[in-house]
Amino acid sequence: MPTAAQLDRLRIVLVSSRNPLNIGAAARAMSNFGFRHLRVVNPYQPAFREARSAVGASALLASAEQFKTVAEAVADCTLVVGTTAVRHRTLHQPLRRLEDGARLIRKRLGSNCVALLFGSEKFGLSNDDLSHCHWLMRVPTVDANISMNLGQAVAVCLYELIRDAKTKTPRQQEKLPLASAAEMERITTMLLDALHLSGFLELRRVADSDQRIRRLVRRLNLPARDAVIWLGMLRQIAWKMRAGATSASDSPPRR
Amino acid sequence: MPTAAQLDRLRIVLVSSRNPLNIGAAARAMSNFGFRHLRVVNPYQPAFREARSAVGASALLASAEQFKTVAEAVADCTLVVGTTAVRHRTLHQPLRRLEDGARLIRKRLGSNCVALLFGSEKFGLSNDDLSHCHWLMRVPTVDANISMNLGQAVAVCLYELIRDAKTKTPRQQEKLPLASAAEMERITTMLLDALHLSGFLELRRVADSDQRIRRLVRRLNLPARDAVIWLGMLRQIAWKMRAGATSASDSPPRR
Repeated sequence: MPTAAQLDRLRIVLVSSRNPLNIGAAARAMSNFGFRHLRVVNPYQPAFREARSAVGASALLASAEQFKTVAEAVADCTLVVGTTAVRHRTLHQPLRRLEDGARLIRKRLGSNCVALLFGSEKFGLSNDDLSHCHWLMRVPTVDANISMNLGQAVAVCLYELIRDAKTKTPRQQEKLPLASAAEMERITTMLLDALHLSGFLELRRVADSDQRIRRLVRRLNLPARDAVIWLGMLRQIAWKMRAGATSASDSPPRR
Repeated sequence: MPTAAQLDRLRIVLVSSRNPLNIGAAARAMSNFGFRHLRVVNPYQPAFREARSAVGASALLASAEQFKTVAEAVADCTLVVGTTAVRHRTLHQPLRRLEDGARLIRKRLGSNCVALLFGSEKFGLSNDDLSHCHWLMRVPTVDANISMNLGQAVAVCLYELIRDAKTKTPRQQEKLPLASAAEMERITTMLLDALHLSGFLELRRVADSDQRIRRLVRRLNLPARDAVIWLGMLRQIAWKMRAGATSASDSPPRR
């Protein structure tokens, strides 16, 4: 996880963006992940004005800096990285996957300013824009659809920059095939039925009892074969209570 | 990286989405990262119709399945995970950071279907929706702005699922403080000036010579102290050529 000082050293540079929603979305993702410096180069002016004046537009957007050229927008940075979807273009710089590139950017942010460039919605970064970059980075999309929405691309890149690789996952022991949600829901329904019949829920009246029971059942994390058994047991219990409440009947419930 | 079969086992479930742009954005991110199964629960109907009929709406959106309840939408899954921004709500299930949660989801996708739930733009998932979940997951946003745009949240979660932790980064040796982009651009400008004066560029005429030169300079990856020296050398050379072309002058260029 980058420190606040490191977050402050990244400049997100939107080049020739045309859609106010995307400019706003980029600002929102920056705010979500703790980045502050938004720069726009040669934006489509009505779009930029609209984004800035939108209801709920952030302080971040209000303080976005505007530049005429890429050169000016990246002048204080020692590393300039361009994002690209690599369509039909011959690239002149090294291309890194986001997972790789973000690691290098994080490292550089330790003591230097870094610019991360995003091109226009339609054409991406031009060759002239790219020539300002030390290397290029791509989000690992599938070949069938490599072109991401601008706001989503910004969000994904920034997330990769702040993600914490060291977060520990608690060990899980799950060997048996597990019951599906449908099976667990059948158990929940049957258990609720049984609890109602038994008067249990009526005695302990709470507003969200159905939800509490559903969570209780989900926490069982039952193997599929156990789920069948549980369902059978509950069905039998419910039948018994219902039979006792209405009239005596000796026919057992259908399995 | 998940296999195609694993990607096919994930169900993205949008619960009570209201904005057609967000439904479309979720579908686009799924398509970017190779996921195929979109399910919507109780969508705001005009929004869903609009999203489906939008220009460029994907096959993925056209084949989205619609359900009345969360229970039906997750019925074939053995793991149901809810996403939440955790605002003022007491949570009844374990909460995992995305980095953790995605690891568990990937593992489960190896042999089982998994549902990943996203709530409405305004309210997120309800307590009733959440009670269908085995555990919850949150994108690691900053406290000051935890609420993500729906389309961006989907993009970030799916990216984490497909990201490849094993991608190798080539080693870099960068000990000295590096020159800023402004300094490198000054060198580029000075070098271009010198090349023009020398006739170099006129002899080797190519359309994108400026860009080629800029990239050439960027690849130098100069330490800041070397940049000063380079700039001084080039300035001197340019001065000499210019002086020679116009008239003899013995005053050296300003340092």
